[in-house]
Amino acid sequence: MGPQVRKQGPDHRVAVRCGDVEIGENSFTVIAGPCAIENLDQALLAAKLVEEAGAKVFRASLFKPRTSPYSFQGIGAEGVPILQAIKAETSLLVETEVLSLAHLELLHDHVDMLRVGARGMRNYELLKEVGKTQKPVILKRGMSATLEDFLFAAEYVLVNGNRNVVMCERGIRTFETYTRNTLDILAVPALKEMTHLPVIVDPSHSAGRSSLVGPASKAALAVGADGILIEVHPDPAAALSDGDQSLDPPAFLSLMGELRRLAVVMGKEV
Amino acid sequence: MGPQVRKQGPDHRVAVRCGDVEIGENSFTVIAGPCAIENLDQALLAAKLVEEAGAKVFRASLFKPRTSPYSFQGIGAEGVPILQAIKAETSLLVETEVLSLAHLELLHDHVDMLRVGARGMRNYELLKEVGKTQKPVILKRGMSATLEDFLFAAEYVLVNGNRNVVMCERGIRTFETYTRNTLDILAVPALKEMTHLPVIVDPSHSAGRSSLVGPASKAALAVGADGILIEVHPDPAAALSDGDQSLDPPAFLSLMGELRRLAVVMGKEV
Amino acid sequence: MGPQVRKQGPDHRVAVRCGDVEIGENSFTVIAGPCAIENLDQALLAAKLVEEAGAKVFRASLFKPRTSPYSFQGIGAEGVPILQAIKAETSLLVETEVLSLAHLELLHDHVDMLRVGARGMRNYELLKEVGKTQKPVILKRGMSATLEDFLFAAEYVLVNGNRNVVMCERGIRTFETYTRNTLDILAVPALKEMTHLPVIVDPSHSAGRSSLVGPASKAALAVGADGILIEVHPDPAAALSDGDQSLDPPAFLSLMGELRRLAVVMGKEV
Amino acid sequence: MGPQVRKQGPDHRVAVRCGDVEIGENSFTVIAGPCAIENLDQALLAAKLVEEAGAKVFRASLFKPRTSPYSFQGIGAEGVPILQAIKAETSLLVETEVLSLAHLELLHDHVDMLRVGARGMRNYELLKEVGKTQKPVILKRGMSATLEDFLFAAEYVLVNGNRNVVMCERGIRTFETYTRNTLDILAVPALKEMTHLPVIVDPSHSAGRSSLVGPASKAALAVGADGILIEVHPDPAAALSDGDQSLDPPAFLSLMGELRRLAVVMGKEV
Repeated sequence: MGPQVRKQGPDHRVAVRCGDVEIGENSFTVIAGPCAIENLDQALLAAKLVEEAGAKVFRASLFKPRTSPYSFQGIGAEGVPILQAIKAETSLLVETEVLSLAHLELLHDHVDMLRVGARGMRNYELLKEVGKTQKPVILKRGMSATLEDFLFAAEYVLVNGNRNVVMCERGIRTFETYTRNTLDILAVPALKEMTHLPVIVDPSHSAGRSSLVGPASKAALAVGADGILIEVHPDPAAALSDGDQSLDPPAFLSLMGELRRLAVVMGKEV
Repeated sequence: MGPQVRKQGPDHRVAVRCGDVEIGENSFTVIAGPCAIENLDQALLAAKLVEEAGAKVFRASLFKPRTSPYSFQGIGAEGVPILQAIKAETSLLVETEVLSLAHLELLHDHVDMLRVGARGMRNYELLKEVGKTQKPVILKRGMSATLEDFLFAAEYVLVNGNRNVVMCERGIRTFETYTRNTLDILAVPALKEMTHLPVIVDPSHSAGRSSLVGPASKAALAVGADGILIEVHPDPAAALSDGDQSLDPPAFLSLMGELRRLAVVMGKEV
Repeated sequence: MGPQVRKQGPDHRVAVRCGDVEIGENSFTVIAGPCAIENLDQALLAAKLVEEAGAKVFRASLFKPRTSPYSFQGIGAEGVPILQAIKAETSLLVETEVLSLAHLELLHDHVDMLRVGARGMRNYELLKEVGKTQKPVILKRGMSATLEDFLFAAEYVLVNGNRNVVMCERGIRTFETYTRNTLDILAVPALKEMTHLPVIVDPSHSAGRSSLVGPASKAALAVGADGILIEVHPDPAAALSDGDQSLDPPAFLSLMGELRRLAVVMGKEV
Repeated sequence: MGPQVRKQGPDHRVAVRCGDVEIGENSFTVIAGPCAIENLDQALLAAKLVEEAGAKVFRASLFKPRTSPYSFQGIGAEGVPILQAIKAETSLLVETEVLSLAHLELLHDHVDMLRVGARGMRNYELLKEVGKTQKPVILKRGMSATLEDFLFAAEYVLVNGNRNVVMCERGIRTFETYTRNTLDILAVPALKEMTHLPVIVDPSHSAGRSSLVGPASKAALAVGADGILIEVHPDPAAALSDGDQSLDPPAFLSLMGELRRLAVVMGKEV
């Protein structure tokens, strides 16, 4: 028996259910929110914007892995009540990043979906723990991970019992510096040749510039992705992290419209 | 005065005219043909397929820069009458690659459009010579060229007097090996932030696998490219070069239909 | 006040003391051992070889982060008595990799030196925990980490209170596939321009082939490194992991001799 | 029969003779000079420095391939009398770069050794022409060339009749930006496993900073290279190109001394 992550036939596709959302089933799922939860007001403002724009899942990061220890590390455990408030005051599902077993234990019961980020993709001990839950999880590609490495990382989750993995292309590190990372757009159809799992794209971390986030999102839809994980902020200029790559409310609303029109041609629904 | 390749304002865009085709003017130009001209029959068969599918420009390479000296190097000078036959028997414009001043002198009067390939992008002596003509030229990005390097290469053509340059993203070399190169799809909107020149995509050399050429072409259109340079072959399995990444006639016709539907949403015409 | 990892002047260098070994003080420290501890016999055989060859620190990995969950993951907690046996039967110091807080707690009291591997370099939660100990730690460069990223990772340890960090260049991921990684040999003098911390090289993981491990080790010494972390195995052909890049006993002894002769010219002692 | 560039046995090595110098025969050949010939005075000053330091071959570039058309492009054809003056007033052999057939025709009779640079490595038409001469040629690795690509480029020269090829590792393009390129030091022993041709290193273009040129040169010697191609300038601060990576006279003299001491241990002669 080969790895569980491999397709068993050309039409083998399995959607991942998260609440009432099915990622991968003729839908193009938009998971949107700020880079980081900063405080209750910012979070609720962002969540309502995301809800009104028609997205179903809210990106809600409490812990941020940052290159520098001097950068904002996230609001941490004190953000848990904020997650609860978002769930109370909106219809959104909530997604969050976990960096360690401690985070997983703290956040498991408060969120609908987990995320293992690019830096976490190589943290196999964490993947094993995530694999022991049944929570849907977005697994982001490591910045130097081949597709083979990426699939094996997913296998760490699957083989431990959790089959609800959504693969997320978010750009790889290359010599090009105009963009923050190089969005490997063909990773989407390539992964779909190899695995039955849904595949989404993070246009924000790949582009690193808000002006390129719209084109990246449209490319993701056109290339066959099952959704996007996108950063929107009520006021990007005031964001504590990643303001440069976050869409402001008008840009996000406009992009959602464009994606809806494009989705019709692609036989998908946003 | 800054480099001529730079935009002089946010709306500064200049189309490149090639015969009756305008690359960059609300159109999505499809330049299609086999990797290499092999003989008269193959060339005419391919050209008629391309014409019937509605493309306007025929890719017609006589000289092939190959990594190994033992690989097929192209039909060479004896292909000139084939170019003439294509122009006589179809309505297509003809585009070809030049690798040296000798090729440029030989082919200049027989083609409508020149191409400087990825390997030639760093051949500044060749770019200077191409700059002395008025022939439209597709300049492909070198496989390790930053966008800055790429724009400077175009500048070598512009500063020598030829303003008819079409930039072509064709994938960069990274650690990923599933695809032949990594298609840097965001290079398209990134270049359009920096230069007024049209930007097209080569889905074939980036993907390196025919199964990914369709998704790559659709991503190119969705991301805002002005066209594609695509490999189609009457019989890919028998191709003397790049058969793995060439579309066969049914796949090409089907893709053209998909692109037309997508173009409507993008406000472009194929 | 800038980051603690930065040099405060051109001659600012601080050695890291581990038992009676000073890494960075005109010495070229050889840390050697198998990729993984497999069983008591293999470990003792390897340790005695390493001791006889004149190395002072034994590489003794119980937990192995592997790309595939189906690869040998290390002997795990049951290897602790083996570490004790090595310390009882040889004069060697013992160094080991930790992948999580659980490993750190398990292994802290049984080893003289910790290692955070290339995959762990981005695990900032782990680095924070390592920073709360006073144990000397080898921090390996992530496979896509810039030197800036690498220094910031070290800063996570320093800022939490542990100043005993040894930086280890182990190759980066590039397009080249002949070697397992591309040894960035100039990272050594580059790091020494930026930080006061000692810098060593892992010739085994960079080369990925035993035939290149000797040249890599000599280059490390010539370029100014403070030591190497090198894989030696009593019987590489039978190794459970990384046999291809492990030196066998005669090759290791011969290399030690070469390094000693080279060290004299470089003003160092092996 | 396989490619001519391949070794026919483990001990198959062939030195390349250039005048009275044998590159590859237990010697470590130093080819030194400024990035570009600027004028007669600068050239003679540099040449005498190089001669006094004991190097045998003078790097004398008249044509410079530059990323920007606005950068200094070299002195060009008017530098030919300067080459003649250098040969008249010193005992040095002269080496120069050719970028095109026109350069090759102009310079062939005035120099002892040709160079095809990193950008030229993919210019197969040029390699074919160089292959038709009998002039020793330094072939530099392209910045995104795998070792396989690099060997095939050499094959273009060999198969056309010129067997006097010296391979030169000069760094590859990666994500790291502290150095200008990433010196792939293990390319040296790797190439020596595959080909009988001599292999040298360009420490200047890889490092891009004069402070790292010395360590790079010593690493080259320790790893088994047959020589270096190094930039020295009488007054780097006033250089028209690459001043940042050029050694000044005292640094070059000091490095030559260090290399001589290291060479003894490596069984070579500088």
